[in-house]
Amino acid sequence: MTNWPEIYQYAQQAIKEAGQRVRNALNNELKIETKSNPNDLVTNIDKETELFFIEKIRKDFSTHSILGEEGQGDELQSLEGIVWIIDPIDGTVNFVHQNRNFAISIGILENGKGKIGLVYDVISDELYHAASGQGAYMNDTPLDPLKPVSVEETILGINATWITENRRIDPEVLAPLVKRVRGTRSYGSAALELAYVAAGRMDAYVTMRLSPWDFAGGCILLDEVGGIYTTVDGEALNFLSTNSVLAGNPAVHRTILEEYLAEKK
Amino acid sequence: MTNWPEIYQYAQQAIKEAGQRVRNALNNELKIETKSNPNDLVTNIDKETELFFIEKIRKDFSTHSILGEEGQGDELQSLEGIVWIIDPIDGTVNFVHQNRNFAISIGILENGKGKIGLVYDVISDELYHAASGQGAYMNDTPLDPLKPVSVEETILGINATWITENRRIDPEVLAPLVKRVRGTRSYGSAALELAYVAAGRMDAYVTMRLSPWDFAGGCILLDEVGGIYTTVDGEALNFLSTNSVLAGNPAVHRTILEEYLAEKK
Repeated sequence: MTNWPEIYQYAQQAIKEAGQRVRNALNNELKIETKSNPNDLVTNIDKETELFFIEKIRKDFSTHSILGEEGQGDELQSLEGIVWIIDPIDGTVNFVHQNRNFAISIGILENGKGKIGLVYDVISDELYHAASGQGAYMNDTPLDPLKPVSVEETILGINATWITENRRIDPEVLAPLVKRVRGTRSYGSAALELAYVAAGRMDAYVTMRLSPWDFAGGCILLDEVGGIYTTVDGEALNFLSTNSVLAGNPAVHRTILEEYLAEKK
Repeated sequence: MTNWPEIYQYAQQAIKEAGQRVRNALNNELKIETKSNPNDLVTNIDKETELFFIEKIRKDFSTHSILGEEGQGDELQSLEGIVWIIDPIDGTVNFVHQNRNFAISIGILENGKGKIGLVYDVISDELYHAASGQGAYMNDTPLDPLKPVSVEETILGINATWITENRRIDPEVLAPLVKRVRGTRSYGSAALELAYVAAGRMDAYVTMRLSPWDFAGGCILLDEVGGIYTTVDGEALNFLSTNSVLAGNPAVHRTILEEYLAEKK
């Protein structure tokens, strides 16, 4: 039988150790490459950090599968068994340009169900963590269940891209929402932005394209504080493919879905 | 003759002490009121912190003038003499909703010329500070002179408001810039955003309406790293009134001004 408390402990230790390695690495020169486009950056540290997790997990939990952003893990066709979904550096542009405001994100699933979620703000040394049914924490501080807020009082996480011409959504759909909320923020790391929603610092977050490693850890945090996450069509997220993501406290999530996104076609 | 090193030292100590008081105050309940509109928040801490500075400065530097956001200082018609421009809590919405990502900002001017700039990220305990001709620092770390970057590599600070319908600028003016830059960010505190530009974490920042207390501290930081700041019309900022603000490294500032903002009418 799976010893989940042990895995929870293990994952927290591993992510802290990886974070320490990343902090050390920032003292040396980064090797920066681009991936699919000039703004899709990857560094040697992204790859080395992913490999650190893969080697560690394969040694200690040989039956677990690993889905990692840099593709050095397994090629998964299903979420059967225990799957670690890992983003070694979420917010690589921040990592390169700011040397802060990036995170390591880990979601651990069992047969597709979220069991453990971790988002580690490496520079602030803030570990957001949750195990299914046991609540969510930032370091040792419990995160409160999300309180209902009105759209007018909402702090919305959204990148300005989605209200300019883009291939995924008519900019006119979300622009009225941007005008209605109390304020918008954009931090450049989806994992941190989801952790911020879980911590009640933002009330909703919307983006048109994320990969499972961007959202897995954050979504499991949200489960534990009563947060809701779906695609912008209101469908369940697919943890094996890219998705649009709307996450937030239930009241705001429903209003955004019904009053703004339902109109999007 | 004015002893500027003493004032620099004094201001740093005062802002640190004020920050400690704010951190303590966060353990108690905030009294939140609205000002000009429902999203223009002010708390008892904003007012108390401003008063802390005013009483201190009036006692120790009785000839200095004080311009503060909450209006408890002097009513100034000119920048003659030595003027402290103070925002006790810049980013009050963050202060209320996040209990972080806000700053205390102080700019000290002599006959309108920036002498000392301080932006204190209270929760991170990061004090950005500069004295005219002596470089800028974050805590004890010197900030490097800004390096030229292309617009394509730029991280731009901009609130999504300015690319939706608003009273100050046609959203079509800045939307193409948002598409061209590497990424946009929005942190909800102008003082911190200017400090981020000074620290090279963002390459430019644009906003349509700031008051002197929002930008005075940050602009003096920028002076010391070779940053440029003007209105979106390319005019000098007026430190006694509200202004639009475009700040950034010189190359990016010029390109944004010439290729985007010159078209705005």
